[in-house]
Amino acid sequence: MSSKDIYDRATKVLAGGVSRNTIFRKPHPLYVESAQGSYIKDIDGVERIDFANNMASLIHGHAHPEIIEAVTKQMHKGTAYTMGSEIEVSYAELLYNRTKSFEKIRFMNSGTEAVMTMIKASRAYTGKFKIAKAEGTYHGTYDYAEISQTANPNNWGDLENPNSVPVVESTPDGILNDVITFPYNDIERTIRILDKYSNDLACVLIDLVPHRVGLIPGDNKFIEALYNWTRKNNTLLVFDEVVTYRANYSGAQQNYSVIPDLTALGKIIGGGFPIGALAGSSDVMSVLDPRKKILKHPHSGTFSANPISMTAGYTAMKLFDESVVDKLNVLTSIAVKQIKESIKIADIPACVTGVGSMFRIHLTEKPPTTFREAYQSDETKEIINLLLDYLFLERNIIMINTCSCMFATTLKQKDVDRLSDALLDGFRLIKPRLKI
Amino acid sequence: MSSKDIYDRATKVLAGGVSRNTIFRKPHPLYVESAQGSYIKDIDGVERIDFANNMASLIHGHAHPEIIEAVTKQMHKGTAYTMGSEIEVSYAELLYNRTKSFEKIRFMNSGTEAVMTMIKASRAYTGKFKIAKAEGTYHGTYDYAEISQTANPNNWGDLENPNSVPVVESTPDGILNDVITFPYNDIERTIRILDKYSNDLACVLIDLVPHRVGLIPGDNKFIEALYNWTRKNNTLLVFDEVVTYRANYSGAQQNYSVIPDLTALGKIIGGGFPIGALAGSSDVMSVLDPRKKILKHPHSGTFSANPISMTAGYTAMKLFDESVVDKLNVLTSIAVKQIKESIKIADIPACVTGVGSMFRIHLTEKPPTTFREAYQSDETKEIINLLLDYLFLERNIIMINTCSCMFATTLKQKDVDRLSDALLDGFRLIKPRLKI
Repeated sequence: MSSKDIYDRATKVLAGGVSRNTIFRKPHPLYVESAQGSYIKDIDGVERIDFANNMASLIHGHAHPEIIEAVTKQMHKGTAYTMGSEIEVSYAELLYNRTKSFEKIRFMNSGTEAVMTMIKASRAYTGKFKIAKAEGTYHGTYDYAEISQTANPNNWGDLENPNSVPVVESTPDGILNDVITFPYNDIERTIRILDKYSNDLACVLIDLVPHRVGLIPGDNKFIEALYNWTRKNNTLLVFDEVVTYRANYSGAQQNYSVIPDLTALGKIIGGGFPIGALAGSSDVMSVLDPRKKILKHPHSGTFSANPISMTAGYTAMKLFDESVVDKLNVLTSIAVKQIKESIKIADIPACVTGVGSMFRIHLTEKPPTTFREAYQSDETKEIINLLLDYLFLERNIIMINTCSCMFATTLKQKDVDRLSDALLDGFRLIKPRLKI
Repeated sequence: MSSKDIYDRATKVLAGGVSRNTIFRKPHPLYVESAQGSYIKDIDGVERIDFANNMASLIHGHAHPEIIEAVTKQMHKGTAYTMGSEIEVSYAELLYNRTKSFEKIRFMNSGTEAVMTMIKASRAYTGKFKIAKAEGTYHGTYDYAEISQTANPNNWGDLENPNSVPVVESTPDGILNDVITFPYNDIERTIRILDKYSNDLACVLIDLVPHRVGLIPGDNKFIEALYNWTRKNNTLLVFDEVVTYRANYSGAQQNYSVIPDLTALGKIIGGGFPIGALAGSSDVMSVLDPRKKILKHPHSGTFSANPISMTAGYTAMKLFDESVVDKLNVLTSIAVKQIKESIKIADIPACVTGVGSMFRIHLTEKPPTTFREAYQSDETKEIINLLLDYLFLERNIIMINTCSCMFATTLKQKDVDRLSDALLDGFRLIKPRLKI
C-alpha cells in the first residue's frame, strides 16, 4: 500500500484525512514505515534524514534503545494506575535538581494542558482574570493562549495596542477581552500596554525564543523589564519552555537573569511519549495542593504522570546531561556556520536565527527583531515552500515548515554536511525568485 | 523503600506530593510495584484487586500481553514523527465502523483536550459563543467544561436557573457568563432555561451516564428533547463519552434514539496510553479540514495520533468486540445483583445505579434521579470514605472514591464474589453510622 492509497482511505474517516495539520502536505501526506535515530523511512521506500524531530519533541531521535528498554520493562508492570508510582517522584526530583525555578512540579499530558494549567493557576493565585502575551507567539491550543498567533497585517492593528486576533472562528468575546497582546522585545510599548491593565493581569506569558516570532531570543533587558513590572503589579511572570527547554541544561531560562514564577514544559521531557508539566515556586504551586484547607485549583487527569511517559522522559533527560547538551549545541552551531557559508556562496539575502539546538532560516538580509519584521508575505511563504519541497522530495531532508531545524543528539557531522550542501543547491534554486 | 518514604520525597518536589489529586489519600498515597490483569501489588508488598482501572480507562486491566506485544513492535519503529502513520488511519476506520455518528474522527492527547476541541469546533461551526451543560457533570479541566462540577447547596442557586459555579478560583466572568447550567433529566426546566439563550448556544454538552450526577442514565425522552431543541435552534448536541464509551459496543449512545453531532472520547480507547478523540458528522468536522479555503479551526498537537497510543488503542478496541462487551456487561450485572443481595442482608438503606460495565453505590433507599438528590453531604461522604478505606486497607479492594466500580475484561466471578462479600462486611461496619 502506498502513501497515496493510505491517504485515500484517511480522507473517508479523518477530518481532512489527517489527525494533526502538521503532517498535511499536498498532494497527500507521507506515511512512515519505520524510524531509527535521525532516519525515517516512508512506506514508499524513501529514507529521509530528520531535522524536525516531531516538532522539536525528540531530543534523542527515534527509537532510542535505552528508552525502548526502560519503557518495555515498565509496560510489563502496567501503564497507568489509580495509585502512585515511584518514577513520577524520581522524575520530579531530576527536574527539580536541573532548574532553579522548579521548586514544585506537576505532570500532565501535553504542552497545551501545561499552558492551560499555568494560566488557570496564575488566576487562582493572583485573583485576577486577564493575561498578557506577545503578538504572534504559539502556546498550544487553549484559546486564551492561542490568541494573536495568526495575526497578520490585515488584522494586527496598531503596534501601540495590538489587536486580540482569534485563531478559531467565533472565539468568545470574553476571551478576546481577557487577552492583552504586546510587541515582543519592545520594552517601551510593552510596558505602556501592561500599565493600562495593571490591576487585572494574572500573568505575563513569555516564550524566551519564540519560534513563530522568528526564533529570535528575548533580550535579557526585555525579560528583566517584564520581571520588574510583574513584581510591582502583583502579576506572575510565566515562561512557556515547551519548545525551548532543550536550549540548555536548565532550559532557555538559564540564559536570563530573572527567575520566573511558573514554567510550562512538554515535548522533549516526554522522551517521545505524550507529556506536559508545570513547574514553579512552592508558593504559587501550592494552589494545586490537595492538602490545603481551601484547594484553589483542583487538578487531576486520567493519564497525568502515567509511569510510561515518566519512564521515557526520565530516561531521555538523564541521557541529556550537561556534556551531551553542550555537544549537541556545538554541532548545531557548526550547522548554522555552514549554512551561513552556503548563503554567502549562493549570494542570496538570507540569515539564520536561533539558540541552542534550534535555528530558523529567514529570507532577509538582516535577522528580524520583531514579529512584524519576521512576518512572511504569501510570496515569501511560497518561496520557502519551494525550498522545503526541494529538500524533502529531491534531497530527502525533513525540516519544520517554518524553515527551521530542531536537532537531536543522534545527528552527526555528515548529516550536517548533507544539510548545508542541500541548502546551497536549494538557495540557488530559489535565487531567481528572490528580489535582490 | 516504603510508600511513606516515597511520599516524603514527593512532598519536596511535587505540589501536594502528587501529580494528580486522584491518587492522594491520607496519610499518604500508596505506590505501585507492578500490576497484571486485575491485580495491583504495591511497593509495600500488598496485592489488591482493581475495580477502578485507572478511573475507568483500562478495559482489559493491566499489562495486557497483546497490547504489550503490539506496542513493543511499534516502539522499535519510533513513537512519534512529523509524518503520518498507517495505524492512525486503521484505528479511525475501526471507530468509524463501530459507531454510526462517527463519520469523521480526530485524535488528541486527553479527554480534556477532546472536550475542549469539541466546544471550540461547536463555536466555529455555529458562529455562537455559549454552551449549555448539566449541573454537577464532570467533563475534564477545560474551564468552560468544568463549570458547576463542584456545585453544592451553598452555591448552586435556584433550580429554575442553576448558578455557573466555578471550579478554579478566579475563573473569568466571561467564562461564567458563557456557560449555562441546567438540571439533568428535568425536561421542563431544562427547555425553559435553554429557550432563554436560544440565539447564543453553540452546543448542549451531555454525558449520557454522568458519573458525578450519580451514574444515572439520561432518560431517552430527556435526550430526545435536547436533540429536538437543538435542531430548532441551530445548536449542536454533543456527547461526552470519555467514560461511557465502554457501556456498549457503540458506546452509551447505542441506547438512545438520537444521533449526536459530535462525540468526545478518551480513556479506554487509548488501551492504557494517553489519548483523546473527537468524532462526529462530516459536515461539522469539516471545520477542522486543512484543505478548506477558510480553515475555521486550525488544530495540530505534538503527540496527537502518535503511533503508540494508536497501536495500543487499536489493539484494545479490536479485542473489545461485541461478544466481549456482552460478557463484561453480564459479569457486571451479576456483580450488581450480588451487591444488592449484600445490601438486603446487611439491611441498610443503599442502592446501586449504573449502565454496562459501570456502577455506583449510593447510601439512599431509592436511586437518586437528579444531581441534587445524588449530592452527598459531608456526613455521607465520611461514611463512604469509611467504607472505601475498609475495602482498600482491610480487604485489599480498590474502588473509585465515589463508591463506584468500572469493570475490566480481566475480572472473574471469584473477584466479583470477593467484592460482594467484602461489601457485605463493609455495609455492616457502617450500619451504626447510618440514620435508619
